[in-house]
Order: sequence, then structure tokens, then C-alpha cells
Amino acid sequence: MSNASRPFVLISEVGPRDGLQSIKSVMPTAAKLRWISALASAGLKEIEVGSFVPPKLLPQMADIREVVAHALSIPGLRVAVLAPNLRGSQHAFEAGVHKITLPVSVTDEHAMANIRKTTAQLIDEVREIVALRDAQFPGVEIEAGVSVAFGCTIAGAVSDDKTMRMCHAMAECGVDEIGLSDTSGYANPAQVRRMFRRLQTEFGDKAGGAHFHNTRGQGLANVVAALDVGVTTIDSSQAGLGGCPYAPGATGNIVTEDLAFLLEAMGYDTGIDIDALIAARSILADALPGESLYDHVQDAGLPKGFTYADGRAPSAPQPEGCLLGVPQ
Amino acid sequence: MSNASRPFVLISEVGPRDGLQSIKSVMPTAAKLRWISALASAGLKEIEVGSFVPPKLLPQMADIREVVAHALSIPGLRVAVLAPNLRGSQHAFEAGVHKITLPVSVTDEHAMANIRKTTAQLIDEVREIVALRDAQFPGVEIEAGVSVAFGCTIAGAVSDDKTMRMCHAMAECGVDEIGLSDTSGYANPAQVRRMFRRLQTEFGDKAGGAHFHNTRGQGLANVVAALDVGVTTIDSSQAGLGGCPYAPGATGNIVTEDLAFLLEAMGYDTGIDIDALIAARSILADALPGESLYDHVQDAGLPKGFTYADGRAPSAPQPEGCLLGVPQ
Repeated sequence: MSNASRPFVLISEVGPRDGLQSIKSVMPTAAKLRWISALASAGLKEIEVGSFVPPKLLPQMADIREVVAHALSIPGLRVAVLAPNLRGSQHAFEAGVHKITLPVSVTDEHAMANIRKTTAQLIDEVREIVALRDAQFPGVEIEAGVSVAFGCTIAGAVSDDKTMRMCHAMAECGVDEIGLSDTSGYANPAQVRRMFRRLQTEFGDKAGGAHFHNTRGQGLANVVAALDVGVTTIDSSQAGLGGCPYAPGATGNIVTEDLAFLLEAMGYDTGIDIDALIAARSILADALPGESLYDHVQDAGLPKGFTYADGRAPSAPQPEGCLLGVPQ
Repeated sequence: MSNASRPFVLISEVGPRDGLQSIKSVMPTAAKLRWISALASAGLKEIEVGSFVPPKLLPQMADIREVVAHALSIPGLRVAVLAPNLRGSQHAFEAGVHKITLPVSVTDEHAMANIRKTTAQLIDEVREIVALRDAQFPGVEIEAGVSVAFGCTIAGAVSDDKTMRMCHAMAECGVDEIGLSDTSGYANPAQVRRMFRRLQTEFGDKAGGAHFHNTRGQGLANVVAALDVGVTTIDSSQAGLGGCPYAPGATGNIVTEDLAFLLEAMGYDTGIDIDALIAARSILADALPGESLYDHVQDAGLPKGFTYADGRAPSAPQPEGCLLGVPQ
């Protein structure tokens, strides 16, 4: 198959940030570093390695400087972090990251609950962060991660126009990319197609990637919709790490293993070796005993006869098939 | 919204058949009957209530006659069963079912392992079953459930042409409908679009529904692809009951609750009350302690502000939102 017929889709791994910040356990630093190295070895090209937030708020991220320094030592890896404000961004710039994601809630309700600011205050702060970048750290990419873009756990339904108004504010602030986040699993595929189409029409090259949570099991369904309208960057988290402590059983981000399988099976090139990804998962499982992991491909193995989009065969042997009763 | 803009999609519940036959526990008959009634009360219009197979092969289905009799007493419910052969079909016809699904494997390897017949023998038997129906039970619908249509756990990859050859054989036998089954979670959305388009082009009104397993987490992604090309009947199983005893953790059919949420959120009418569906699930959970259930919407609840495709509000109160750390 020619390259033209198998376009590249970037899986941006957010497990070390969105996954680890959403669980109560704190992953030991040494394990984090091994995990990030293993993820990169499996072919992930961009990893959001943590957040620059006060350790008393998120002790899971207290080692962010050490983690960033390690990630920057991995050849070819694009190192992203999340920063909720100017102070965190300053630290992130100084640490030498390649990319900062700024979470900006669409609703005042979510913004207040999340970081005690109104959306107007958030917009002002993004403007200051972009000015700082322009003045002192010109090589660093800034993405606005537009949160609760498809619906809000506090305010409820969010109109398309309301989300787009925040996107326009972000473009005016001068961010490089605007991504849409389904923070709590509210999105549906019809809405995803509609919103990303509009993002591309209104912002062209600044239209960014998709960040879906699998809270209601709809994550990969929404990915299909995003791919349909040409989205080429999708966030995910190894083993779907994360979730919500107030909704027992609710899952976190979409699962990197399952996403990589989806993309490769559909003919998209990801550069990922799924067996190596599954091997990386054991570092996570060992370091976080008792945390729920949600992957499917890990449990079932790759299908017999599976080949990657570029024609490669899997690197590990495939499991025996399953037969019981009279299957259909 | 007008009816024209929210087309009806039939969810065909297969939990009492595909779910229960795939687990080791045997659900007590009284609980089965209560469960089926509760599923119908939640708005499900077609339920595959079991299989006509020898009890020594599948003790889970030993009460099939009693279950069918009960299901037939529920007003408005379309009662379907699976039958693997002429003998089972004869019994199903006599029991008065509305519809029989005949599982026909695309590969000889799967057919032999599953019911010890070649595909040629399967085709001959379907011809006899249709002849019996035509002669004595003219009102009963026969669907061919074309198994391992997207790939086979034993033979590996299955070509589109190979699956289509079995579909043509089924049409020649005189079945009413030809559905495609992803028996072991091999399908991807690109393949699903391609295959169902071809099914519709080649068989018109005989093109049937989609039966997906969520073995590798791709179930709802494949549903989106099927909807895209106009498929209007989707099989699913409450709580994703089922799975595979040889792949611990591997899930079964796609989850009815999550599917109903997907469809209603996208604007498709299903006639289902998701809260009533979740209530029905407790009968299942109580009757099968220790069995894994895989639903997401049950765990997370409906989103705040959710409305059904027809504008209805949910019948139960919605849970509190989730906030932790700095979500994106």
C-alpha cells in the first residue's frame, strides 16, 4: 500500500498526565521514567508527561521537572505538558518542554470548580502566556485544550456556539493549536463530526486534535467520527488509566492499545508496535497495584492474521482462538 | 425534531442467547423470565431469547421452551431464537417463535470446530430449513447470521469475497435476511462500511443487521461505521454479558446500555428507556453473582442535560459530576 493511502495519525499519549493525575496512588518516579521510555520505544512520538501544578494540589506530579528532563533525553520524542496558569507555564518553558497544553473550560461553572477562575480570567491568562512564549521561548508550541467542549458535568449541555466562542478567543490570544476535549464522556459521534468540521472551517491550520474520555464507552466511536472529518491527532492513555473517583467503574481516557489497533486495522499508520505497547503496560500495572486498567487488546491479543497498516506482522505470537457453545 | 430526521434503529437484544451461552453459570429460569420481561418493559422490541440446542451441549439453554412461551406472552415483543441445525429449527418452529437465526460460518475451520460440519453441509441444511418453513411454518422469518464474516479465530483473515460467497449461498437458499457477525472482535470500521455497502448493493432488502463483539473494544466504533452506511438493526447484549473463557477479561457482545446511549445521543430513535434498562440489569447481576458485567453508562450514569432523540428527559435523576485534579 502506498503512503498516500495510509495517512499518519498521531497518537498523543496522555497517561502520565491525565491518567496519573486522576488516580489516588502516586507512581514512583523511577517507574514513571521507565514507563515513559517504554512508551517511546513502542513508537509513541508525543507524550504528555505531566502537569506543572503545585505539589500540594497534585502530589502525583511533584516530580514533574525530573520527568521532563528524562523525557527530553529520549531521542525523537516530543515532550508535552499541561499547565493550568502563567506560573506553571513559566516553569514548563524553563524546563525546556516542546509543547504546553493549556486547559480552558468552556463554561464558567467548570472553570470555577476546576481552577477557581472565570472563563474571562482564563482567556486573559492565556494571552499572557502566549506573550511570555513570544518574548522568551519562541520555539515552544502552545495548544489550547478546550475542555467540556461537548457538555459539562456541572452546567450540563453546552451549545456548539458556546464552544466555538472559546475557540475564537483562543485564536485571538495567539495559540498555535485549538483542540477539543470531551472531559467527561459527553460527546457523541454526530456532535464530534459537526464540531471538528466547524473547527477546521473556522480555524484552518490551527484546528487541533481530539481528546476523548471513555466514561460512557463511546470513546472509539467518537474517534471514528473524528477520523471521518480528517482529525489527525488523537489523545489517549495507556490502559485507559484514570477515571473518576465519584463514579466507581467509570473509565478514564480512551485506551492507547485499543486506539492503536483501531487505527492500524483501518489502514492508518501510527508507527506503533502494539506488542511493545502491551509490554510497557506491565510497568504501569506493577507500579500501581490495585488501580483499574481498562484495555481490551491486551486481554484478547491481536487477531489471528492481523497485519499493521504498513504490512508488518505482529512481533509477538498470537493467542489461540476462542470457541464455546454455538457462537454467532 | 421530525420523525424523518430521527430514523428508528432496532436494537436486537441477544443477551439471553449469546450472553448466557458464553458463560459457565446457568441462570435460573425464573430469573430469565423476569429479566426478559424487564428488558421488554425498557422498550426492547426484539429479543433473541435462547438457542434450540441439546441441553447436554448447552445446559444454559435447557429451559428454552419455557422461555419462548413466556416471551411470546409479552405483547408486542418479537421473539427470536438461534438454531444450529434442522432439528433445532423444527423445535423452534413448533414453539411458535417469530424469527430464527441460523449461524453459518464463512470458514470450514470455524464451522467444523463449532458444529462439526463443513460450510457445504451447512448450506444444504439451511436449504432444508427454509423448505420446512415454506411448507409448514410460512410466517416465521429466517435470518442467516453469517459468522466470522470479518475474520476467523481459527483460519485468520477472511477475504471480503469469501464472506460474500456465503451470503450469496444464503440468498439462494431463500433466507429472508442476511446479517454479518463479527464473532470474535476482528472487524474494523473501514471493513464494516465496505462489507455492509456491498451487502446492500448485492442483496437489497435481504441485507440484514450487524452483530459485533466488543472483544477488542471496537464494538461501538464498528456501530458508527454500520450506521454510516444505513444499517438499521444492531445486536447487543445487556451489560456485554459473555466473553471468552480462553481470553480472561475479554468482553462479549457490545453493551446494550452503551449502544442505546450512542444511538439516542446521535439522534436515532430506539424506543428505549435507558434508566429502565439499567434497572433490568440488576436482575441479571443478582442472578449471576461473580459474572463480569461490562457496561459503562450504568457506571457513569447519563450525562447531565441529556435528552433522548425524541426530546424526552431521563426518567431517573442524574448523578453528580466528577472533578479531580486539573481535568482537560
